[in-house]
Amino acid sequence: MPVTVDFMRRIAEAAAAETLPRFRRQNTVSNKEAGGFDPVTEADREAERAIRALINAEYPAHGILGEEHGNENVSSSHVWVIDPIDGTRAYISGLPVWGTLVGLTVDGDAVAGMMSQPFTGELFYADANGSYYEGPGGTRKLSTRKTTSLADATLFTTTPALFKGEKRALYDRLEKQVRLARYGTDCYAFAMVAAGHADIVTDPGLQPYDIVALIPIIEKAGGVVTTFTGEPAEKGGDILAAATPELHAAAMEYLRG
Amino acid sequence: MPVTVDFMRRIAEAAAAETLPRFRRQNTVSNKEAGGFDPVTEADREAERAIRALINAEYPAHGILGEEHGNENVSSSHVWVIDPIDGTRAYISGLPVWGTLVGLTVDGDAVAGMMSQPFTGELFYADANGSYYEGPGGTRKLSTRKTTSLADATLFTTTPALFKGEKRALYDRLEKQVRLARYGTDCYAFAMVAAGHADIVTDPGLQPYDIVALIPIIEKAGGVVTTFTGEPAEKGGDILAAATPELHAAAMEYLRG
Repeated sequence: MPVTVDFMRRIAEAAAAETLPRFRRQNTVSNKEAGGFDPVTEADREAERAIRALINAEYPAHGILGEEHGNENVSSSHVWVIDPIDGTRAYISGLPVWGTLVGLTVDGDAVAGMMSQPFTGELFYADANGSYYEGPGGTRKLSTRKTTSLADATLFTTTPALFKGEKRALYDRLEKQVRLARYGTDCYAFAMVAAGHADIVTDPGLQPYDIVALIPIIEKAGGVVTTFTGEPAEKGGDILAAATPELHAAAMEYLRG
Repeated sequence: MPVTVDFMRRIAEAAAAETLPRFRRQNTVSNKEAGGFDPVTEADREAERAIRALINAEYPAHGILGEEHGNENVSSSHVWVIDPIDGTRAYISGLPVWGTLVGLTVDGDAVAGMMSQPFTGELFYADANGSYYEGPGGTRKLSTRKTTSLADATLFTTTPALFKGEKRALYDRLEKQVRLARYGTDCYAFAMVAAGHADIVTDPGLQPYDIVALIPIIEKAGGVVTTFTGEPAEKGGDILAAATPELHAAAMEYLRG
């Protein structure tokens, strides 16, 4: 049974019921990283629980890989990949640029996905038919901007500080080529590329749950998402997304070193 | 005649009528900076024109200082200070973290101000009575978070790259002291400090129109806004805003060198 848009809307609503009432309240923020700060909130855990319950009820044979509650049946051909709040740092800082990410892989390929931002009331999603947006501006089919030259491009990254060692020098060289660089927007940046408002996103060291949902949203809108060496992005790693194949190739020249 | 909340709402609506229909459309972006990229759009120019018309009609004796259309009668005791779109880079990248800033100075002191984000439907404003929020979460009085230690603080800056030379080293040392640092949010970061979701914002080289409107919004909520050397922020410069006097003093220790 193919994934329906209606099912993605139901996931977005179930997640929003957990994330939105806790947004901008005094969340109990826990730290997942010894010697650092990797925040997780009750909203992350409860939203993932709600999403898993919907998937288990609708597709009991499918596997699930989630950021907060681990793996279930991931040897299944169909595996759902969940990040209940991508951009937890934005979430705990009050900024409306986090999102709930849910993607579906079939034999390892991302075939459907959604990014939902409930504070702005926006849903970006893709299935076999295309990539779509529902929000305050209405509903529309998504299409990337036809930018082919780095000199005309807007580039996003979460922060250059995530590029370590030699990778930082490669990133800095790429940033010097683009018209505009912006930081700090997590999954929202990928949605902006799919929607034709920005041109490139690059983030090193992503997990599958950070990117799987976003791959079909960008690819079905005309963009390209791979690792820095051109491998499929479904397993995460150092990720480059771009609005057009030409722009992707131009950016990859810099990033693969 | 004191400035009324109703007047600030009217300004927000008049500006939104120019900015929102052009948001995420193919704006004609012009560049104001030779050898760099300082974008300005038709939305900036038209929103400032609409705001000026309202102020001229309501307070004909007052002066106006605006980013796009210059100075009018600024020797008046009452001067309005306008940035029609603070965060034009966010605006042209589709991100909902830009805002319309309008502040009022009396004899050089910021006494009232507003920041409006029409896509999210949020209005942050302050007058002599206090600092307030109107948005999807309802209406409430704003109060900063009572953070007093850098180790517990969330810090925002537009980008560390704006700190040049020795200032960059000072900023980097400050960033190492805080729990969480976030980039790229322009005026929205200052609003988050006023609303108790973040603790510190620092941005070097601001113009008066980047900060005047935000001063009363933060101060009436319990925060402190000055230059890096503790001077009043109304003339712009290197700006530090913090949620409490203690936190402001702790951050200023690092930034003033």
